[in-house]
Amino acid sequence: MEKRKGRVTLPSEENFLKETKELMERWGADAIRDSDGTKLDDEIKQLDAKIYTTYFVARGQNEFAKNHMEECQQLYLMSLFNTALTEKLEIDFMKGYFEEQLQPDYFHDPKKYWEVIDRTTGSVVDAEDWKVCEKTNRVIVINAIPWHEYTVSFLVYAIWDPTQMYNHITNDWGNKPHDIPFDVRQANSNQHMKTYLKQWLKDNPDTDVVRFTTFFYHFTLVFNNLGKEKFVDWFGYGASVSVAALDAFEQEKGYSLRPEDIVDQGYYNTSFRVPTPAFLDYMDFVQKFVAEEAKKLVDIVHESGKEAMMFLGDNWIGTEPYGKYFNRIGLDAVVGSVGGGATLRMIADIPHVRYTEGRFLPYFFPDTFYEGNNPVLEANENWLTARRAILRNPVDRIGYGGYLSLAYKFPEFVSYIEKVTEEFREIHDTIKGIEPYSGLKVAILNSWGKLRTWQTHMVAHALWYKQIYSYLGILESLSGSAVDVSFISFDDVINDGVPEDIDVIINAGDAGTAFSGGNHWSNEKLVTTIRAWIHNGGGFIGIGEPTACNHEGHYFQLATALGVDKELGFSLSTDKYFVTPVGEHFISADSTEFDFGEGMKNIYALSADTEIIEYSNGEVHLSSHPFGDGRAVYIAGLPYSEENTRLLMRALYYAAHKEEAFHKWHASNIYCEVHAYPSVGKMAIVNNSMKEQTSVVFDGDGNSKEVTLAPSEIRWEDF
Amino acid sequence: MEKRKGRVTLPSEENFLKETKELMERWGADAIRDSDGTKLDDEIKQLDAKIYTTYFVARGQNEFAKNHMEECQQLYLMSLFNTALTEKLEIDFMKGYFEEQLQPDYFHDPKKYWEVIDRTTGSVVDAEDWKVCEKTNRVIVINAIPWHEYTVSFLVYAIWDPTQMYNHITNDWGNKPHDIPFDVRQANSNQHMKTYLKQWLKDNPDTDVVRFTTFFYHFTLVFNNLGKEKFVDWFGYGASVSVAALDAFEQEKGYSLRPEDIVDQGYYNTSFRVPTPAFLDYMDFVQKFVAEEAKKLVDIVHESGKEAMMFLGDNWIGTEPYGKYFNRIGLDAVVGSVGGGATLRMIADIPHVRYTEGRFLPYFFPDTFYEGNNPVLEANENWLTARRAILRNPVDRIGYGGYLSLAYKFPEFVSYIEKVTEEFREIHDTIKGIEPYSGLKVAILNSWGKLRTWQTHMVAHALWYKQIYSYLGILESLSGSAVDVSFISFDDVINDGVPEDIDVIINAGDAGTAFSGGNHWSNEKLVTTIRAWIHNGGGFIGIGEPTACNHEGHYFQLATALGVDKELGFSLSTDKYFVTPVGEHFISADSTEFDFGEGMKNIYALSADTEIIEYSNGEVHLSSHPFGDGRAVYIAGLPYSEENTRLLMRALYYAAHKEEAFHKWHASNIYCEVHAYPSVGKMAIVNNSMKEQTSVVFDGDGNSKEVTLAPSEIRWEDF
Ligand SMILES: [Mg+2]
Ligand SMILES: [Mg+2]
Ligand SMILES: [Mg+2]
Repeated sequence: MEKRKGRVTLPSEENFLKETKELMERWGADAIRDSDGTKLDDEIKQLDAKIYTTYFVARGQNEFAKNHMEECQQLYLMSLFNTALTEKLEIDFMKGYFEEQLQPDYFHDPKKYWEVIDRTTGSVVDAEDWKVCEKTNRVIVINAIPWHEYTVSFLVYAIWDPTQMYNHITNDWGNKPHDIPFDVRQANSNQHMKTYLKQWLKDNPDTDVVRFTTFFYHFTLVFNNLGKEKFVDWFGYGASVSVAALDAFEQEKGYSLRPEDIVDQGYYNTSFRVPTPAFLDYMDFVQKFVAEEAKKLVDIVHESGKEAMMFLGDNWIGTEPYGKYFNRIGLDAVVGSVGGGATLRMIADIPHVRYTEGRFLPYFFPDTFYEGNNPVLEANENWLTARRAILRNPVDRIGYGGYLSLAYKFPEFVSYIEKVTEEFREIHDTIKGIEPYSGLKVAILNSWGKLRTWQTHMVAHALWYKQIYSYLGILESLSGSAVDVSFISFDDVINDGVPEDIDVIINAGDAGTAFSGGNHWSNEKLVTTIRAWIHNGGGFIGIGEPTACNHEGHYFQLATALGVDKELGFSLSTDKYFVTPVGEHFISADSTEFDFGEGMKNIYALSADTEIIEYSNGEVHLSSHPFGDGRAVYIAGLPYSEENTRLLMRALYYAAHKEEAFHKWHASNIYCEVHAYPSVGKMAIVNNSMKEQTSVVFDGDGNSKEVTLAPSEIRWEDF
Repeated sequence: MEKRKGRVTLPSEENFLKETKELMERWGADAIRDSDGTKLDDEIKQLDAKIYTTYFVARGQNEFAKNHMEECQQLYLMSLFNTALTEKLEIDFMKGYFEEQLQPDYFHDPKKYWEVIDRTTGSVVDAEDWKVCEKTNRVIVINAIPWHEYTVSFLVYAIWDPTQMYNHITNDWGNKPHDIPFDVRQANSNQHMKTYLKQWLKDNPDTDVVRFTTFFYHFTLVFNNLGKEKFVDWFGYGASVSVAALDAFEQEKGYSLRPEDIVDQGYYNTSFRVPTPAFLDYMDFVQKFVAEEAKKLVDIVHESGKEAMMFLGDNWIGTEPYGKYFNRIGLDAVVGSVGGGATLRMIADIPHVRYTEGRFLPYFFPDTFYEGNNPVLEANENWLTARRAILRNPVDRIGYGGYLSLAYKFPEFVSYIEKVTEEFREIHDTIKGIEPYSGLKVAILNSWGKLRTWQTHMVAHALWYKQIYSYLGILESLSGSAVDVSFISFDDVINDGVPEDIDVIINAGDAGTAFSGGNHWSNEKLVTTIRAWIHNGGGFIGIGEPTACNHEGHYFQLATALGVDKELGFSLSTDKYFVTPVGEHFISADSTEFDFGEGMKNIYALSADTEIIEYSNGEVHLSSHPFGDGRAVYIAGLPYSEENTRLLMRALYYAAHKEEAFHKWHASNIYCEVHAYPSVGKMAIVNNSMKEQTSVVFDGDGNSKEVTLAPSEIRWEDF
């Protein structure tokens, strides 16, 4: 059989032609890219491969930027909290900020664009009661009320691109100039971005794919006075703000934003905050603008006969691929970094592009590729978690980044990737565009809905936080499971009801966050719609503090459906009778032990018909409860593991009242899974672990057989 | 030396004269009481001892009660939550309630006194939209909104006294008639209580002390349909409610109460709820009435030449000994049950009575006094925890309850109590009325202040709850420590500032509870008063979720002072730099390991000058932070132990900036304490443990010596 080729992108570098050719051959690569810090030789550019070239739209052109510093990007920042000891309070509002990154905007009138807020009362201080000292970067509040706390919300210019700043500082680049980010909302910058791109396209005739990294506004990344990260929000709109944007917003939306709409008490509207109507308007406003402007660049690229690809990260704000303006951009492709199944699906599911590409780990950098380390392990783990998701919906291409010369020094790694690329092509060619078997339709319900598809509970892209890992397991588990997953918002439900065909709704998160929903749960329409839907046979799974909102005698607003609530101290006087777990339960049938991650305290069962599945430490951590024809399951937390994936699957089938279908296309061993593609009569039995596994495997009619799979094996069978 | 006598109360019973005399002699008893289920022989009543006789005011007179069932006591109850499936909803409002205890009040017009509430919106359903079916005890809501939840708040008659009910059911009393509680707010009952008491006093000439058990209204104790406890609140005003009370309230306060003011979403205004103004008015109204009526009974007792003693429990609602009307009652004495140091102080500190008495454990009941068990152990533990508190402020008398004949069968126990009573008398005679040395003045700050002196975080008297033990340690530790403790309310601070001479304020509790303070912390006056006070040198200790209230960018409203806050998920994007504990710290100098009980999650340090003392699991559990001239300490929880008592003492001295005074009248060994009485030149060195202990002991000038104390020893020294 001829070896398949293509669908793989190689990074390359100078003076590496021969080896690049060899690796292209072995890995079947059909595209070559440059990376941060590498350039491609002309000879490499002449190889039989598409050439991707990284392109920065709004930075890296300091000659232009320095001549238009007034078009520099801006941010709203909040000072520290300052306690007034007397009626006069001097606020060092830049305290803690990095002056190499951020400079106060004195160009626009602070009295108009800044706010001093009395954080003890929440009231805005009259502009006559404070003044700015530009020389010392101080705000002086007169007529302060002693012992109140005050903050200053102020505009700055961002004079250093955050990604370059991070690399610069991390790699000690010394005197290398700082990339100044300019704002394409401004006339000169807007003109420049187009002129420059046109010239660049002429200057780079060998480039086939312009890899936009990315467009206009970086996610919020602010450093502290020591040059270390101070604030990071991968979804943050902070850097999209400017006086020009505020003015345009008012024009477009008919009302003006206050600094507080952006600064948000210092929480800066992270994706964990239940979004305010004003902030949703602002996002919409930015997304629309970004789409319009990005489209102009994409059109220019297309006019030159090249393709336009977007990197999902860095300056991606406003381009949200699941947002309502994304299709207007007209991109050919999106490429993003794959940390596991959820991030794979975040890329693979993107609509309105011809192809998607996942950049796999490890990056070819010395932190992994050093003598004595075996990079195959990381690659294998990354591949196994991603492969689950690929089997649900493949990206169209995979690629790598970094220094190819480094990877080349690890022959075992080279061989392993040869195998991976071959396996990837086989999967892709077999199932791309084929609908996989899904046993259930699952909707994740939160404040964001579709916009944050596969992006819930994230802070900085793919970083671990104590407060999120117990929720991230939900998406990671679902990303490679045989269920159809959608993301719906509270507003969707309020406006249009629960979408048809949904079997189970999941609401997961800490109380008050956008993911749990906060005050949304006092919305009568939301609560009754879901209550009715469950009662009529729907399945509901609440994880952590689902539907939490202290209102009218419940903390969980769907407590009556869930059969559990959380004790806040107000109902201690009420006896809690129900503390005995059921002997066996469908949901826990494959569980040997439970891991709820951070878990949840003080959850108690409300009624005798609450099926308590796990009870320890005086608390319920896993339960189910019938509600009319439906069922509602409670789980205290769900960090990712094979065991928890199985637990979630069982919970979903149970909630949906479809236990009898659970054994269709099923593997008994939790380390194995079955992916079926009925329309082509094929199934893949996979071993998701690096050890040999034996499993009973069930087909769609419930017939079973025992199979033994080699470590990491994928076995295709026809039916 | 002649053996001291007196200050001890014995229970006795029929046919036990000789042994009673013997025990009176050995224990030095000078009073004899009856108990639940016992009566005294006439011969016993002639002994040289005061005779206490239990007296029930508002129950146990069924002949009267049955003729005046319309004067029966009442309660407001809330039904379960009922989901409307259609526009018609039938609510079985008595579901889950015990019909032998509670009967719906159909005498008064439900349309006027009941409320049907839409708990989805919080709105009251128009009385035209529901009706009551008396035959089936149902409320039928018409025009219900499908999928909304509804509750009924309804009035019932309480036809069984809760204490008798509990004893009746527990002891299987079969056909014994149920005591019907009547309401002395009603004319006939009010007349009856006085007439009956007068007659009773005549009929009981040997009684010296009328032991009121207690006055009019039982704490809330409601049973379920299976005859088991359903709701218990030792502080609950539920049984004080009636139509008569509601009418009188309106007369007195000028506005009427809604059922919801009492029912409170089903939380029934437990002491964990931040009290509403209406509920505070209602408590005041009940307290005033109870004091006035109780005074009449006390006056009658006094006219008969006897003493009036009140039992602190059962029907004690409205008599709060630290409340503003208590002194009007004119009682001679209060007796209460001693579970440890805090409950001892709760009794001993009561003002406006001539003497207080503590009933010690174990109760002489078969659950402790059975063959093979050693009741000395329980007695010893009870005595050691109480003794710490007695050394701060002695009760005037101690006593026991139950069957004396049972205790008599345990000679070791009899000997042990002989020793205890002797030790008690020695302490009392040495220090009663003498001010003990206090190193600091400490104020506990919560919604209740003085009213709930030594009564914070309690649900059912002295019972363990998972949600409270981590706070109860605070009072238990303080009850026997050399600090002066007061209880202040938020309103006290708002109206009058922090009382003079306070060294340290403690605010402790779960967020939203009356003990932490909930929305009080958005009160500008409260926050600024305390902020200023700390900054000017005050000490503040926050335990659990102190000052918690989500407002203007802080969760802990004194976060800037505390140097810590709690991560709710909104500030995950902000880097948390401060995670390194200090090497050594004054506060933890005697700690070998930490026990924060339930602890607290997601607490993080806000600044470099937060002294992190314990950090584990990615969280701060113990820290201190300077704020101006003051200091604020954070502790995640403080269950009672000797180790935590020491930790708290060190935290108090550190917060007060008085570390140098910590070693005055101090024992290095955490199981030992020194109590000093400078005005009489005496000190007591105590071993609080049942093992021998060696300790360095410091006097008031810092001179030290090593002492070895026998198990439980108290050693008096002069200076
Ligand atoms: Mg890159
Ligand atoms: Mg008693
Ligand atoms: Mg500080």
